[in-house]
Amino acid sequence: MTMKEEIIARLAAFRAEMTREGVAAAIIPQTDPHLGEYIADHWQVRRWLSGFTGSAGTLVITDREAFLWTDSRYFLQAAQQLEGTTITLMKEGLPETPGITPYLISHLVKGATVGIDGLLFSSTAVAQLRSSLEKHGLKLNAHFSPIDACWKDRPALPDAPVFVHDEKYAGRAAADKIADILREVKEQGATALLISDLAEVAWTLNIRSRDVNCNPVATSFLYLAPIGSTLFIDEVKVDEATRTYLASANVAVAPYSAILDFLKALPADATVLYEAPRTADRLVDALGLRGVAGASPVPMMKAVKNSTQIAGIRNAMEKDGAALVGAFMEIERRMRQGIKLTELDVADILTEYRSQQELYFDESFETIAGYGPHGAIVHYSATEESSVEIHPEGLLLIDSGAQYLDGTTDITRTIAMGTPTNQERHDFTLVMKGHIALASAIYPEGTRGDQLDVLAHQYLWRDGANYLHGTGHGVGHFLNVHEGPQSIRLNHMPATLRPGMLTSDEPGLYRAGIHGIRCENLVLTVNAFTTEFGRFYRFEPMTLFPWDLSLFDTAIMTDEEINWVNGYHQTVRERLWPRLNDQQKAWLQEKTRPLTR
Amino acid sequence: MTMKEEIIARLAAFRAEMTREGVAAAIIPQTDPHLGEYIADHWQVRRWLSGFTGSAGTLVITDREAFLWTDSRYFLQAAQQLEGTTITLMKEGLPETPGITPYLISHLVKGATVGIDGLLFSSTAVAQLRSSLEKHGLKLNAHFSPIDACWKDRPALPDAPVFVHDEKYAGRAAADKIADILREVKEQGATALLISDLAEVAWTLNIRSRDVNCNPVATSFLYLAPIGSTLFIDEVKVDEATRTYLASANVAVAPYSAILDFLKALPADATVLYEAPRTADRLVDALGLRGVAGASPVPMMKAVKNSTQIAGIRNAMEKDGAALVGAFMEIERRMRQGIKLTELDVADILTEYRSQQELYFDESFETIAGYGPHGAIVHYSATEESSVEIHPEGLLLIDSGAQYLDGTTDITRTIAMGTPTNQERHDFTLVMKGHIALASAIYPEGTRGDQLDVLAHQYLWRDGANYLHGTGHGVGHFLNVHEGPQSIRLNHMPATLRPGMLTSDEPGLYRAGIHGIRCENLVLTVNAFTTEFGRFYRFEPMTLFPWDLSLFDTAIMTDEEINWVNGYHQTVRERLWPRLNDQQKAWLQEKTRPLTR
Repeated sequence: MTMKEEIIARLAAFRAEMTREGVAAAIIPQTDPHLGEYIADHWQVRRWLSGFTGSAGTLVITDREAFLWTDSRYFLQAAQQLEGTTITLMKEGLPETPGITPYLISHLVKGATVGIDGLLFSSTAVAQLRSSLEKHGLKLNAHFSPIDACWKDRPALPDAPVFVHDEKYAGRAAADKIADILREVKEQGATALLISDLAEVAWTLNIRSRDVNCNPVATSFLYLAPIGSTLFIDEVKVDEATRTYLASANVAVAPYSAILDFLKALPADATVLYEAPRTADRLVDALGLRGVAGASPVPMMKAVKNSTQIAGIRNAMEKDGAALVGAFMEIERRMRQGIKLTELDVADILTEYRSQQELYFDESFETIAGYGPHGAIVHYSATEESSVEIHPEGLLLIDSGAQYLDGTTDITRTIAMGTPTNQERHDFTLVMKGHIALASAIYPEGTRGDQLDVLAHQYLWRDGANYLHGTGHGVGHFLNVHEGPQSIRLNHMPATLRPGMLTSDEPGLYRAGIHGIRCENLVLTVNAFTTEFGRFYRFEPMTLFPWDLSLFDTAIMTDEEINWVNGYHQTVRERLWPRLNDQQKAWLQEKTRPLTR
Repeated sequence: MTMKEEIIARLAAFRAEMTREGVAAAIIPQTDPHLGEYIADHWQVRRWLSGFTGSAGTLVITDREAFLWTDSRYFLQAAQQLEGTTITLMKEGLPETPGITPYLISHLVKGATVGIDGLLFSSTAVAQLRSSLEKHGLKLNAHFSPIDACWKDRPALPDAPVFVHDEKYAGRAAADKIADILREVKEQGATALLISDLAEVAWTLNIRSRDVNCNPVATSFLYLAPIGSTLFIDEVKVDEATRTYLASANVAVAPYSAILDFLKALPADATVLYEAPRTADRLVDALGLRGVAGASPVPMMKAVKNSTQIAGIRNAMEKDGAALVGAFMEIERRMRQGIKLTELDVADILTEYRSQQELYFDESFETIAGYGPHGAIVHYSATEESSVEIHPEGLLLIDSGAQYLDGTTDITRTIAMGTPTNQERHDFTLVMKGHIALASAIYPEGTRGDQLDVLAHQYLWRDGANYLHGTGHGVGHFLNVHEGPQSIRLNHMPATLRPGMLTSDEPGLYRAGIHGIRCENLVLTVNAFTTEFGRFYRFEPMTLFPWDLSLFDTAIMTDEEINWVNGYHQTVRERLWPRLNDQQKAWLQEKTRPLTR
């Protein structure tokens, strides 16, 4: 069977289960019971059923048809991968594309049932879906989970061992974090907290694993309570030493699959805080009246790094910068010597140099090396089929990062492979002007990321250009490269920026079919000064690697902007210097020479 | 009786009504059944009961105590006016000040009843209040309205005559607007619309009156329906000609007080759209199951001015600018000749010159003329007691505006009365840099005002300064000087900026005890250009009057900023020129001479 035939057969098997359970349409999202962005193979149900490998998209199956909703990042890829599968692509965000719920409402007959697996939808999402469907005479079955019956060779749950993230890196003991958390939980009128987000579990307990590609987390749920907490996890993952470590923090271990029964069996007077938009409906269902929907204190505590973490991040940034010096020199050498170099080769070189650094653990996400037009595909990641050779012209966008035990990195540099054109320099400089304006911002206590976003967009807008992705996301500490609650984007996000938060500054500009530009450093929110008007914060750039000097058009830059570049390059040189050999020092000296008009 | 004794007696009478109805605490807001910001004397209940004359504040009365919650603009004024009244000032926004509901919850005994007049609270507010109180064992009586019993000499409802705002100014006939509105109402699944906002009623029907100080509106409710609409209004206000005019738009007239019975008597299958956060609870109550909570199309339609209105606004701005040339020359003359000049005199001079302009109707708000430290009191308005004499030194902040039949103006200029100090020039220039950055912004379709706000704040923040009021509000057309739905502020506001919207650009800086600075023009959103990235908009300054050249510190300005000032001054000169006499021309020539380094 070809892949296309395979997909058609899978859909048929799934439809047989739908018929058996009286489900007229099923919605299959791209997530897991932890509502994660990156998920283990076991939960790649949408991918298995559709053949579409993109990281975002929802499959809807009715008795005769199937549809995949995905966003503009994946329009091209989805169209290719869905060809011949009988699945229709629904382009999210286009005015003519209906939402999933409106589509179902207008296409199903009255009284029909929509089936979903309540473990893969938040309690908030299920409540909204149920209310919309019922208003239009449809029913919702939130316990429809026929996948095990269809997917015979479904990958097992991840079984990578759990290990302790040493306090010398984490900076605070699990027991202390738990005490802090429970204190805040109590202030919200609850006695216990249910955590289903994997990064939050990992951060709270100072444990890590390798369950999700590039995210050093362990598949688990955590129930925190003053009389003793419980970690729900596949027990083969936890060795005796880790079990003892957890016990010392008053955390018992229970089987992963026991979570629902455990919640159902809680005493009637238990009051368990959970975040409704971030907790699976089946868990909330199991809590029943014992559940208290509210805001967990964990995301904010996790986002604000302590001094040990910050020192570790500084160290990780120096290692990462030094590794990139080696990697970029190698890329240049191959280009100079005419050795064939593809996008995949670039990714391999970066990994090779980073993996030689102390405390290296993994990449923090799959490297994006997009050459020429590929750079304009925002979430492009080269595959064996797509990877193209790089020639001595055009722009190469490289977005990459690493997990070190002492910190997580995420950096994007756009470099000219030959002599840049005026358009390339103009575009790059507009993006950098935005990057610099955001990086130089000073803002009062209480400022949210969305309030600052226009600083990064303003010069592009003035030029009639734009980019539609977020400008900045939070970054974990030896944890997920994307974390909340802060974020710098045009959409409203309520979390404020606080000292100790690590956030990306990554404006971009993408000209379809021509090139893509993105300029990204990670920046730390630090105190600037206090005046009669209150406390003010600023960003400190943490990432340490030069920008491509050949791409600056100083004619459209202010003196302040030129000084910013030179000051940043001086810092890069000073901080990386002790880690470089003589050849590397010479290279860096040249790459950080003063930018002048 | 002194005023203080009078207040104490009024509170006692009110408490007697509370006892009679079993109400343990009453909340008296500063609004009317239209939930307006500016209200007629008839509804100045909070002012009558407390003696506090500020435009914002809520009174809470319990059996033994009374509290007034108000914001920082009014801390000083409220402290003075409440002294000796037994009413305690609760400073909103300070961390130690509880909210009203939390305060009641923690101070009332279980089972106690809180009383409010459901005509003075939105349906949303009542639902929230009821839910919070009931969760804590308290009850809500939303029909507690004992004011008529206490307030013997309560002013009558306003009885100013209604007049038609000619289509030659309004640009569109009422019947056409009603048709547009009902089309959008139908798309939301309703057949009728209930409007209780006075400005929305006035805009929809092209009628005006003088019911609210500076706001040319008529106290009324409007029920719009395809089979015929009804205006609920005190019938003495509507003469035969106006009645005929309304009838021609298929609008009948009914007594103001008939609204509740009318809504209750609607057929059971009526579907009436209303905005829950902007419609009084008693009205929603009367609608019962016939009510459909949703978003009214009227605010957005009203905010986007048509070409007739825009032409009128341009004309009004020229008249206003010419009037201000006369007024500012008069102020300068008196200062030069040593004639005593107070803050109140300044306000009088402005009104005198404006009232000579064609189509002048009224001020658009009470003039704020704040000299020296008074300028730092954000909503200062001089009274007979507070008005100080102006000396040839320091800064004078003048925020004023007028209602003309063809447009509403709102302008703030800050001027140096003597040779400005370095601090004055520095502060003024920081504010102007923000004003210019916002005025010069180019932004894509879909941009909200809150996304642009930081442009106005950025230079102040960098200097450790700040202002806490909004940067820009919508402005009506011969209507309220404050209107939504757009707004430029740090708080999230969902409405986007659209071509035809008139909004203020008014950053400021207030140094308590020293001076206040605010620089305000009204700006119109207009098309800038369209590129492959979509449609982009910009602001066109509509206000026409020079900035004080003596206050610019060009050392901290970019060439672009200096050019902006010079370009704006050239426009001011060209546009006002035909309306000025020779002496005025000479004055304006001097005031708009090129700014140079």
